[in-house]
Amino acid sequence: MENLGKPKVVIIGAGFGGLKAAQGLRKAAVDLLVIDKTNHHLFQPLLYQVATAALSENNIATPIRDILHRQDNATIIMNEVTAIDKQNNTLTLMEGEKIPFDSLIIAAGAINTYFGNNAWKIWAHGLKSLTDALKIREHILLSFELSEECSDPKQALKYLRFVVIGGGPTGVEMAGAIAEIVRTSLLKYFKKFDPKMTEVFLVESYPEILTTYPPKLSAKAQTALEKLGVTVLTNTRVTNITSAGVYTKDRFIESANIIWAAGNSASPLLQSLDVPLDKQGRVIVEPDLSLPHHPHIFVIGDAAAAADSRYGTLPGVAQVAIQEGEYVANLIKKQIPKEKRKPFKYFDKGSMATIGKAKAVAVIGKFCFSGLFAWLLWGLIHVMFLISFRNRFIVMIEWMFLYFTDTRNASIITKSIDEIKSEEEGGST
Amino acid sequence: MENLGKPKVVIIGAGFGGLKAAQGLRKAAVDLLVIDKTNHHLFQPLLYQVATAALSENNIATPIRDILHRQDNATIIMNEVTAIDKQNNTLTLMEGEKIPFDSLIIAAGAINTYFGNNAWKIWAHGLKSLTDALKIREHILLSFELSEECSDPKQALKYLRFVVIGGGPTGVEMAGAIAEIVRTSLLKYFKKFDPKMTEVFLVESYPEILTTYPPKLSAKAQTALEKLGVTVLTNTRVTNITSAGVYTKDRFIESANIIWAAGNSASPLLQSLDVPLDKQGRVIVEPDLSLPHHPHIFVIGDAAAAADSRYGTLPGVAQVAIQEGEYVANLIKKQIPKEKRKPFKYFDKGSMATIGKAKAVAVIGKFCFSGLFAWLLWGLIHVMFLISFRNRFIVMIEWMFLYFTDTRNASIITKSIDEIKSEEEGGST
Repeated sequence: MENLGKPKVVIIGAGFGGLKAAQGLRKAAVDLLVIDKTNHHLFQPLLYQVATAALSENNIATPIRDILHRQDNATIIMNEVTAIDKQNNTLTLMEGEKIPFDSLIIAAGAINTYFGNNAWKIWAHGLKSLTDALKIREHILLSFELSEECSDPKQALKYLRFVVIGGGPTGVEMAGAIAEIVRTSLLKYFKKFDPKMTEVFLVESYPEILTTYPPKLSAKAQTALEKLGVTVLTNTRVTNITSAGVYTKDRFIESANIIWAAGNSASPLLQSLDVPLDKQGRVIVEPDLSLPHHPHIFVIGDAAAAADSRYGTLPGVAQVAIQEGEYVANLIKKQIPKEKRKPFKYFDKGSMATIGKAKAVAVIGKFCFSGLFAWLLWGLIHVMFLISFRNRFIVMIEWMFLYFTDTRNASIITKSIDEIKSEEEGGST
Repeated sequence: MENLGKPKVVIIGAGFGGLKAAQGLRKAAVDLLVIDKTNHHLFQPLLYQVATAALSENNIATPIRDILHRQDNATIIMNEVTAIDKQNNTLTLMEGEKIPFDSLIIAAGAINTYFGNNAWKIWAHGLKSLTDALKIREHILLSFELSEECSDPKQALKYLRFVVIGGGPTGVEMAGAIAEIVRTSLLKYFKKFDPKMTEVFLVESYPEILTTYPPKLSAKAQTALEKLGVTVLTNTRVTNITSAGVYTKDRFIESANIIWAAGNSASPLLQSLDVPLDKQGRVIVEPDLSLPHHPHIFVIGDAAAAADSRYGTLPGVAQVAIQEGEYVANLIKKQIPKEKRKPFKYFDKGSMATIGKAKAVAVIGKFCFSGLFAWLLWGLIHVMFLISFRNRFIVMIEWMFLYFTDTRNASIITKSIDEIKSEEEGGST
């Protein structure tokens, strides 16, 4: 439009990496187009709190337009990129429209992967998007309702047993939050069954949970979960998942509530690039995060397999994506030619995970924290990084209510039972 | 269970009437069962604010269990009553289970009705439940997004034109809120089209809007809407609705955003009672709100056509339902036999509707109010009547942010564009 003549930069995805890149180009003399499948930037680290009814979806998501509305060089569209043509520098949108670009930042993120067992998806809900979180919330809350209607306690068990697969931060946080719900909501609101009937399992194929954390913290996290009543099954690989429950090598756990936090693979869009991908489907990028032979096409965040001399291949966490977004925006803004680019260097600010109320583990540099202090730190940092002032304020208030009253404000099943049943019959889950 | 031997009272529906009846029976020596299709009590007067992205669904809904959890004689189940057998004093649930009762309170509410044109439902979204409100929110927000992607301004017009059908309180509040969104969000967040391109229509078949209000207030409401940019079409009957837009006798309004606030009819469940119903499908109840010849079966709220000597047939508003719920609970609690029951008497506390920011109309007894004072009164009363302290607090904060910043916290399209498209293709709307 009015920016005709300026180089056109397209960013695919407005997660942590894409958004940071867009903001980094705020004062650049470019014509910027941000394309995202949704209308919002999602604060993914708190997604499990939406899934467990502690927060509303609006508390952790902000419209991308809202965030970028003062950035005059940016246009935002809600659309899906279906293919990238790296030879002709164009990409294709949902309805077939072609978009040309001079520079491209691919920040398309990751999806859940079921290690080739796509049928498991129906029973084991992943947690990547708001839709996922709301589905899990509906599922958990509905399970309690259904247990209350069972006349046979044996039948009810299925609804009162929760299996979380994957002992990374998401799995640990989900298992901890579910254990809390069971302890608080069930005791107060459901009269028919003994809360002791409920069980929460956390299944991990490795010998310990939180494998990327120092062993001391992994052990502390496991103890904290066990104190909350979670059964942690390490060294346990899932062999099958059906409507009845979860099968491992040597046991069957009957459950109507299965949550999948085990596997990620990068966006399938990357396959259209026709470049080498790693095992998780990520693009193996150059030290400057560009595609080999295409120095104006960059891949960042969960979509990239970037090697760092100190850390090896960088993990799919927010901090990596943010720093990569900043780095790439700077290269484009300053029009730095390939041969003059310094390799991307990651600065690890640490990582943390909460385990229920008033407990967390954190590692910052060489320091490990656990317990109440780590939890307060976790809360502070997460509130600080929420995008809008309003969300920060409301989330703090919601957490205070949750802490002091143990009631979850978002315990609403939005759909009615007839709507849920007719969806089930329609086959959409 | 342990209440064996006590009379069994069943309440169908936990809206304003059903919930009040349940609370009225708190200290009664009965075994109480509350059955609702959803898990929540919905504060329907603020539903339009969820539909227009000002509030989150959790702000105006509270789990029924949460509200009644200290009431020991109450059991709550989330289920749908599919039939009532008044001869055998039993009702049937979704899966065929039979529930016997000694007394029954039918508070099943109303649904949208399209005056025999059920095909209109696909294009003209009603506003009765949280699902409805979230659908309308998604639809409105998505329309703005789609307009931004149109290259042809003529094509965009369809997305930027809103038609609200029905000039009652819901229609007036929706039209006012949409006009505000257009004025604020479009100006700030969408760059491609002139906000002047947008149009909001309010269509009413009667000669004036808010027909149940004094003519002076109806006129004031109309002027206020027109100042906000709403085109009010009175004396205008809708003759057809299609995917293209709304047809009236002498014009066609092309629009992708049609909201239905025109017709209510009582729950279809009432048909299974095999008793005389009025034109809107409501049960014509006795002066004590019971069924003729069945003094232990009561119908209250939107499901009842109750005649009052002073007001005629009572309207479907929260105050009527609440007072009816109280009245019926008292009859049951005190076991008052039919012949000794004093007829139900309604006390009109007034009614009010808002029109955009800082404007409302209210009528209380013989007094009419409009403008800022009516709006503050409206806000105060609505916050006061929200069920939980937390919701009251959060809603006040959300309103303050909205008032001072004009940004709507709930402007999130939860689904991604590919999810929305695949639903459309699947035929579910």
